Amino acid sequence: MAGRPEPIIFILNGPNLNLLGTREPDIYGHHTLEDISHSVGERAAALSLAIDFRQSNHEGQLIDWVQEAATLASGLIINAAGYTHTSIALRDALASLSLPSVEVHLSNIHARETFRHRSLIAPVVMGQIAGFGAQGYILALEAIAAMLSANS
Amino acid sequence: MAGRPEPIIFILNGPNLNLLGTREPDIYGHHTLEDISHSVGERAAALSLAIDFRQSNHEGQLIDWVQEAATLASGLIINAAGYTHTSIALRDALASLSLPSVEVHLSNIHARETFRHRSLIAPVVMGQIAGFGAQGYILALEAIAAMLSANS
Amino acid sequence: MAGRPEPIIFILNGPNLNLLGTREPDIYGHHTLEDISHSVGERAAALSLAIDFRQSNHEGQLIDWVQEAATLASGLIINAAGYTHTSIALRDALASLSLPSVEVHLSNIHARETFRHRSLIAPVVMGQIAGFGAQGYILALEAIAAMLSANS
Amino acid sequence: MAGRPEPIIFILNGPNLNLLGTREPDIYGHHTLEDISHSVGERAAALSLAIDFRQSNHEGQLIDWVQEAATLASGLIINAAGYTHTSIALRDALASLSLPSVEVHLSNIHARETFRHRSLIAPVVMGQIAGFGAQGYILALEAIAAMLSANS
Amino acid sequence: MAGRPEPIIFILNGPNLNLLGTREPDIYGHHTLEDISHSVGERAAALSLAIDFRQSNHEGQLIDWVQEAATLASGLIINAAGYTHTSIALRDALASLSLPSVEVHLSNIHARETFRHRSLIAPVVMGQIAGFGAQGYILALEAIAAMLSANS
Amino acid sequence: MAGRPEPIIFILNGPNLNLLGTREPDIYGHHTLEDISHSVGERAAALSLAIDFRQSNHEGQLIDWVQEAATLASGLIINAAGYTHTSIALRDALASLSLPSVEVHLSNIHARETFRHRSLIAPVVMGQIAGFGAQGYILALEAIAAMLSANS
Amino acid sequence: MAGRPEPIIFILNGPNLNLLGTREPDIYGHHTLEDISHSVGERAAALSLAIDFRQSNHEGQLIDWVQEAATLASGLIINAAGYTHTSIALRDALASLSLPSVEVHLSNIHARETFRHRSLIAPVVMGQIAGFGAQGYILALEAIAAMLSANS
Amino acid sequence: MAGRPEPIIFILNGPNLNLLGTREPDIYGHHTLEDISHSVGERAAALSLAIDFRQSNHEGQLIDWVQEAATLASGLIINAAGYTHTSIALRDALASLSLPSVEVHLSNIHARETFRHRSLIAPVVMGQIAGFGAQGYILALEAIAAMLSANS
Amino acid sequence: MAGRPEPIIFILNGPNLNLLGTREPDIYGHHTLEDISHSVGERAAALSLAIDFRQSNHEGQLIDWVQEAATLASGLIINAAGYTHTSIALRDALASLSLPSVEVHLSNIHARETFRHRSLIAPVVMGQIAGFGAQGYILALEAIAAMLSANS
Amino acid sequence: MAGRPEPIIFILNGPNLNLLGTREPDIYGHHTLEDISHSVGERAAALSLAIDFRQSNHEGQLIDWVQEAATLASGLIINAAGYTHTSIALRDALASLSLPSVEVHLSNIHARETFRHRSLIAPVVMGQIAGFGAQGYILALEAIAAMLSANS
Amino acid sequence: MAGRPEPIIFILNGPNLNLLGTREPDIYGHHTLEDISHSVGERAAALSLAIDFRQSNHEGQLIDWVQEAATLASGLIINAAGYTHTSIALRDALASLSLPSVEVHLSNIHARETFRHRSLIAPVVMGQIAGFGAQGYILALEAIAAMLSANS
Amino acid sequence: MAGRPEPIIFILNGPNLNLLGTREPDIYGHHTLEDISHSVGERAAALSLAIDFRQSNHEGQLIDWVQEAATLASGLIINAAGYTHTSIALRDALASLSLPSVEVHLSNIHARETFRHRSLIAPVVMGQIAGFGAQGYILALEAIAAMLSANS
Repeated sequence: MAGRPEPIIFILNGPNLNLLGTREPDIYGHHTLEDISHSVGERAAALSLAIDFRQSNHEGQLIDWVQEAATLASGLIINAAGYTHTSIALRDALASLSLPSVEVHLSNIHARETFRHRSLIAPVVMGQIAGFGAQGYILALEAIAAMLSANS
Repeated sequence: MAGRPEPIIFILNGPNLNLLGTREPDIYGHHTLEDISHSVGERAAALSLAIDFRQSNHEGQLIDWVQEAATLASGLIINAAGYTHTSIALRDALASLSLPSVEVHLSNIHARETFRHRSLIAPVVMGQIAGFGAQGYILALEAIAAMLSANS
Repeated sequence: MAGRPEPIIFILNGPNLNLLGTREPDIYGHHTLEDISHSVGERAAALSLAIDFRQSNHEGQLIDWVQEAATLASGLIINAAGYTHTSIALRDALASLSLPSVEVHLSNIHARETFRHRSLIAPVVMGQIAGFGAQGYILALEAIAAMLSANS
Repeated sequence: MAGRPEPIIFILNGPNLNLLGTREPDIYGHHTLEDISHSVGERAAALSLAIDFRQSNHEGQLIDWVQEAATLASGLIINAAGYTHTSIALRDALASLSLPSVEVHLSNIHARETFRHRSLIAPVVMGQIAGFGAQGYILALEAIAAMLSANS
Repeated sequence: MAGRPEPIIFILNGPNLNLLGTREPDIYGHHTLEDISHSVGERAAALSLAIDFRQSNHEGQLIDWVQEAATLASGLIINAAGYTHTSIALRDALASLSLPSVEVHLSNIHARETFRHRSLIAPVVMGQIAGFGAQGYILALEAIAAMLSANS
Repeated sequence: MAGRPEPIIFILNGPNLNLLGTREPDIYGHHTLEDISHSVGERAAALSLAIDFRQSNHEGQLIDWVQEAATLASGLIINAAGYTHTSIALRDALASLSLPSVEVHLSNIHARETFRHRSLIAPVVMGQIAGFGAQGYILALEAIAAMLSANS
Repeated sequence: MAGRPEPIIFILNGPNLNLLGTREPDIYGHHTLEDISHSVGERAAALSLAIDFRQSNHEGQLIDWVQEAATLASGLIINAAGYTHTSIALRDALASLSLPSVEVHLSNIHARETFRHRSLIAPVVMGQIAGFGAQGYILALEAIAAMLSANS
Repeated sequence: MAGRPEPIIFILNGPNLNLLGTREPDIYGHHTLEDISHSVGERAAALSLAIDFRQSNHEGQLIDWVQEAATLASGLIINAAGYTHTSIALRDALASLSLPSVEVHLSNIHARETFRHRSLIAPVVMGQIAGFGAQGYILALEAIAAMLSANS
Repeated sequence: MAGRPEPIIFILNGPNLNLLGTREPDIYGHHTLEDISHSVGERAAALSLAIDFRQSNHEGQLIDWVQEAATLASGLIINAAGYTHTSIALRDALASLSLPSVEVHLSNIHARETFRHRSLIAPVVMGQIAGFGAQGYILALEAIAAMLSANS
Repeated sequence: MAGRPEPIIFILNGPNLNLLGTREPDIYGHHTLEDISHSVGERAAALSLAIDFRQSNHEGQLIDWVQEAATLASGLIINAAGYTHTSIALRDALASLSLPSVEVHLSNIHARETFRHRSLIAPVVMGQIAGFGAQGYILALEAIAAMLSANS
Repeated sequence: MAGRPEPIIFILNGPNLNLLGTREPDIYGHHTLEDISHSVGERAAALSLAIDFRQSNHEGQLIDWVQEAATLASGLIINAAGYTHTSIALRDALASLSLPSVEVHLSNIHARETFRHRSLIAPVVMGQIAGFGAQGYILALEAIAAMLSANS
Repeated sequence: MAGRPEPIIFILNGPNLNLLGTREPDIYGHHTLEDISHSVGERAAALSLAIDFRQSNHEGQLIDWVQEAATLASGLIINAAGYTHTSIALRDALASLSLPSVEVHLSNIHARETFRHRSLIAPVVMGQIAGFGAQGYILALEAIAAMLSANS
């Protein structure tokens, strides 16, 4: 595999995730987003994957990035945070993507307020992983790696 | 009418419409957004109108443009895509506009998922045209032209 | 094209549209149904189309006419008025039609009472045009003309 | 108190509030946003407070500013306008803030369309003030001033 | 008033009311529709009014008659029976009528199945009288007589 | 019938009806409650009935009076105003009454806010008369008189 | 039983069933309504029954026929098609019928759009048979025959 | 067909059907389950079919039997009683079955409590027969026989 | 202004507010109702206003007082407590008032049980202030003072 | 325990319970409220408890009494009748009470109209006992006695 | 009564009640199911009753036992735990029982999650007792004992 | 760690999962349940864990096993299939478990029928993994392994 560049996995993080580790740690845990980026990067390297780890509070920015993934990435992991439940626009962007994509949530959204139970993006991604904190990103990466190797 | 500049019609396109022609062509057709801009421009010229054709994935950007239309444009056509069903902010921007405005959808939104049936912006524009693909923009332009000539 | 009869477009009007021009003119405008028939007929002639313009207050009559269109017409425009929101029977008749069909409303039904927002027939026609008064019929005719010439 | 800088209160204004004084004055009144900024500033000075008065049509921008308040401000007043009713992302940003925060609305949102009755952000701020026009900002400022002096 | 013809009151009866006196007498009573016509006619004569008493099972027919009332009648009483709860078309016909109109029901519809509680026509008539059997028609007639004499 | 006291009809009026003639006259008309009491009294006398006309803003008081009617009255007319839509307790009081009882509303409650469409008391009275202003009380009285003479 | 005329079973077919065999055959099958009439007639003869097989697109016509059945028929089978889900008037007609009556649907309405799941007429007939295509009419006929012989 | 064993039809009965003939006979009739088994068996013999008639109060047992039918039976009739409305698990078992299957109910479930109107299993079987008492099983058997002979 | 009596502001408190300071202090705070009356009175004096501060657990009493305000008061502040969410009668009383009126809640009702989110009286008062404890009354008083001086 | 006064249990009865024994005896039984008071008093004496048995049709009165219980009583039993389902004010009063309290209903409210299924007060009392007629008060008394002896 | 066997009361316990005393003791208390069986048994002996105390996690088993009670028991107490809210099958079993039956819940189900508020079985038993922990079984036993002695 | 037995992870599979690989393979994939057991076992061995892999169609059996896990297992993975959406009893069993537990679904339940979107058990387990086919079990195992090593 020498010489061939490693497949890139986009990991997109939505609004307020930049506050991770400080905001409501009893719900979201004590890891910062940088911590997560670091540990996911290590796991990716072990799987011969590269990651492109981003965060934005802007819905439009997240949509731009999903569109960018179509040409640059081999897979996509998204924690859309608050936009998970309200953004049809983000859903449409993900629906147009033909890459394996996974929805991740740090907390168990199904155990929280009712308005967090419904994900508008879940129906257009491969699957959903919720409730495992930072480890959820690792699990999502493994799911994508497995699918990529199954398809290759 | 010589010397008087042609009235400008803003044509605003919302999230993911930049993917047109590639994204889910069985729903949205094979025309690219540039194709549409071109054919609408031709029809506008025939009607002695100029068009200002824009696209953004950003809700805030679309609102900025609607506000800009208040001083620069004589009419407005908007395909708000995913924001159609979720953006009260965009609705409020359109409600404050005293120009003739038309809502266009490429697909027949009433024949798709339930959450696409309700348009938050429909009640504050002149009318809605849905289901005619790229031609819908032409029909909207004619509707505005007719209203402008009726008012002039 | 000389000698070949012009394609006929059925234009069906539902309950109370015979009152047009007198009933609640602030909602429906001052044109009578005859006015509309006349101006649509002129536009049809320009498009080398013939129209068959009808009105009935009877749901069953409208269904009979939709069925009749299957053998006599090349396209269908329907303003089902009050039956738009209540008639599954009319919807079924339209669903069985393989002609291009368009739903028209004089007023912007999405800006009126909630019970007028949902159209039972919208999902089974090509598209919906609402809010443009009498001009809506012209736009619908052009939409059908475009589709017929695209298919021919 | 000489030498100690005055506490800063962020006052964030959401979409279309830049149109104030021109848009639908029967609902929102004749004051421009600049007028409000001016009179609130005067009242703040009397209370030995400084204000940082901002407006944006962009949901993401508002979220960025709420996060910025965490380090720069001693209190926050927000009129989220249309995003009040749709933005879980903005709610999450406010929920992570440990400053006194107040929601303000110029109009009495409870007397308007049903979709304006529910505020997604109300449950995560200290309180809500609605219906008092420009004066609502002054009342909010006083509420925060009282809380700051109670806490100091 | 000699020589001047008596004002005509249309009394329209909807589906299945022709069965009156035989159908479910514990709900609708033992009077036939003819009985009612007779006793209402007598009361009308005493009030110097004429009545035109009709029944149809056809929704379209009832709409035709409501339209006919606009030119022939001075008032209208309608017992729309099953169409009360389902006919927007009939509602629209009544809404276009500028005569005093009253909705009558033999039974107390508010004490029956839930789907009989909502009347689509009630909001567009002067008032509703329900639960008084055949006498309800008399009361409706008096209500109209009072209004006519108040207006004359 | 000489020597036999006239049957008494209780006429109970709920909250805010004491303001009649001053409160929102475009909805409720210009008659005061005293005017109504007077004209109903005259009509009662003509029917050889006596009336006991009362008003209270207190739900409990109205319930007490309904219970009192069981022993003193031969019929009951009630305009429960705001309690119509919220009081199960009042409904239970009326349900236990074996007298003919009629619900009256000055305005056409079915044409007003949705929360005024449902009457909790309608299912337990003989019938409902709504929309005829002060005359509604007269009609209710006649309905009761007819029932009393039918039963006697 | 010689000399005694065979009991007549009314078989009423609602809107669009005259299109059977041509309309959406994947849902409704390839039999025409005439085919069904023929095979049901044969089965009826074997059961010593006569059938009167009718179709109409008009709701009012169907109601007239149901009323007619009361005097002419010994049983009734109805496929009300689109009116099944919207016609309280038809329900009322069937409710007043004291004959054995059966509701039939060619397709399994419970497996189709949600608005086809609820039948307004099911609660007032003996039973419902859905999903067996043309054979459903035969089964309904046998159900009625069994009931008639049980009652005789 | 000599020597070939008769096709077996599984007839599965759900909770409380073992009480038949004793439980609420005004709803479910006076036949015991054994009576039904006997008469269905006779009809099956006439159709050259064998039946395997079972009853259980246990949801899991019914699912086991549906799975067993996949290998042993040629058709399946199920009266799932109370599980009809609550068991997604039973629905999934039936959905995986490629045999003709029919849902039967003794009573007309559409005329009973609202929670009995929706069948979770109806969408995954061939059709539903409800309201004909014990005869419903015979009708279901004939429906299956017809389908088997059509497919053979 | 010497000699002219100070305008009176009615301050009405609903059920259980007499328990303030003892009942659930974590929700309602430690101030007693007398404390609030005292501090509001002081603030009123500074604004040259008089207050009339009352409490009742009786809905009817509150309605009587609202009506009394029409003749005695120049403004009204109401904390209707539990009646806020259930009393249409109280709403109607407030709707008939032409004085500036303000709704106050000690707690942030939007952050509590769902049934406390909807205020029936909010749509008919000038505005709502919720979540600021005892200070809310002061803010309401200032809002009214500002309106009175703007109108004078 | 000699010399120490017996603990007092408040037993509060809501609207229309004074009619007990006469009102709808098939639902509420033939015992009068006095009968119940008597038999509960006897049982209380056996448990060394005193009772204070009251009834009112006035919501406000019941709230006053609940507040009074806080200082005078050791336990509270309440049959709020119609106010059970509508009174948030009564709920708030009970929520502020730190005594053991029990909700009683004579009839099985869960077997009656849907609007009687939800009790607003159930969530703030110790428990609910419904359906046992007059005996329900005895059971409630025993429940309180057991709790008092467990706490003593 | 010597020689006559004591009437048997079935006491059926549903899923997870075998965990009592260990599972979530803050909700369900510290008594084990055996403790409850013991204390209820003692109380039963005092009332000259025998109890048959059972527990199962299997819905079908509980239904079998309810059916068994019909022949063996004189009364039935059931705590159906989780099946209370989901089992129509269990409801049907209880509905067919002509014995006095009582529903018991340890916790106050009306104060817990919304999905625990509705009991499917409550409408078909004599009454419901909820919120009194283990004592609830004793109260239920007394209710049954009272009914049995009233009937004997 | 030598000599210490490996921690056991219960892996429970609900109704119809025994059909895996044969039932609707386009939704559930081609792996049999045995295949999954095998590959999960291998992964478990690598993580020094043992698995106990079971399947049942019986809700009660699954509850028994969840209770058994409390004493025998160190973690639990459950694919409750159809019971996921209907079993409060199973939810209660899981809620009483203090082990790390994970919900797995082969298919993306959020992309299927609406009634499959809500999981009753999700709120009481650690997290949910859906949409990754057989690999979902592996991911769940890793999530548990990570939690066990974090806790050890």
